[in-house]
Amino acid sequence: MPRLPDTALDQLFRLARSQNTWRATQVTDCLLQDLADLVKMGPTSANSSPARFVFLTTQSAKQRLAQHASQGNRAKILSAPVTAIIGYDTEFYEKLPKLFPHTDARGWFAGNPALSETTAFRNGSLQGAYLILAARALGLDTGPMSGFDNAAVDREFFPGGTIKSNFICGLGHGDPSGVFARSPRFAFEEFCSII
Amino acid sequence: MPRLPDTALDQLFRLARSQNTWRATQVTDCLLQDLADLVKMGPTSANSSPARFVFLTTQSAKQRLAQHASQGNRAKILSAPVTAIIGYDTEFYEKLPKLFPHTDARGWFAGNPALSETTAFRNGSLQGAYLILAARALGLDTGPMSGFDNAAVDREFFPGGTIKSNFICGLGHGDPSGVFARSPRFAFEEFCSII
Repeated sequence: MPRLPDTALDQLFRLARSQNTWRATQVTDCLLQDLADLVKMGPTSANSSPARFVFLTTQSAKQRLAQHASQGNRAKILSAPVTAIIGYDTEFYEKLPKLFPHTDARGWFAGNPALSETTAFRNGSLQGAYLILAARALGLDTGPMSGFDNAAVDREFFPGGTIKSNFICGLGHGDPSGVFARSPRFAFEEFCSII
Repeated sequence: MPRLPDTALDQLFRLARSQNTWRATQVTDCLLQDLADLVKMGPTSANSSPARFVFLTTQSAKQRLAQHASQGNRAKILSAPVTAIIGYDTEFYEKLPKLFPHTDARGWFAGNPALSETTAFRNGSLQGAYLILAARALGLDTGPMSGFDNAAVDREFFPGGTIKSNFICGLGHGDPSGVFARSPRFAFEEFCSII
């Protein structure tokens, strides 16, 4: 495989910025389906695919989320064309007979809630990152956020009890005037080693 | 921003496959630095950047990992040109005065081990996914794996006690003959909703 051109690396990583304010340009349901079609191809352990995504597109749906968010995140949630809730299904293993049909992977997790929770949170978070980068690959900006009451959002959007909220993320076309100055990053040897 | 061309979407998501066997082509330290330079630009909560990466390039280093891995993962670890350990620093907040200098974000986490663990695991996993997709963007194949004894790997590679292993990932150029058939994926409405 070739290295992608610098313009693509810039769009995915180097120049992309988390957005705080948004232009009015809408995000179509069709584009959300394109996004999901990319996200679901990213790798997860035993193809477990534990992430569950709720795309809030109406003001009433965004308001239901905003009431459980920190003060500083409410306007971001309400003004983004779409705000996604990234959740994960702690009973993801019930879908493994479909997703990983060549062996009994359900038995690796069923009856082991600690392993199931860790696997769902890890792989659901990987899929949350796939969402961020797939959105950028499709020309969208993102605004991921953690500042909300997870338990209250779970009751509001996932009343069944098996799905837990992970983080939330605005999707749309950002207004560059709302972007903060880039924060410092580590030097290589501060977070990596080669042995 | 434009939508990336289909060839790039294929390389990142649609045609990329987790590898089980590897060609001998080496991965240079310079390419690992390019990879880290992309990964570190991906978004994390409060720029917390909790992931810590150990790139195992020598047979002796890979052997130290392989001894703690499941039987099925040992040959993959030893044969990959590079096997990366993706860890996360549970005391990432000690670096926030550098990474998030405009406010006292350290105080949000210090003394709250439950929030620190959750934040480190979530955001360290996001960064693990950035590693997978950044590697693909640079023309590398990946082979992420979870089957190993995390506590033993922590003792072996992170004896200080504050860094925990998350998952591991082969990096290099895969041998397509070792790839499994693509497993099924969900239809949109099985993992997404629009409200």
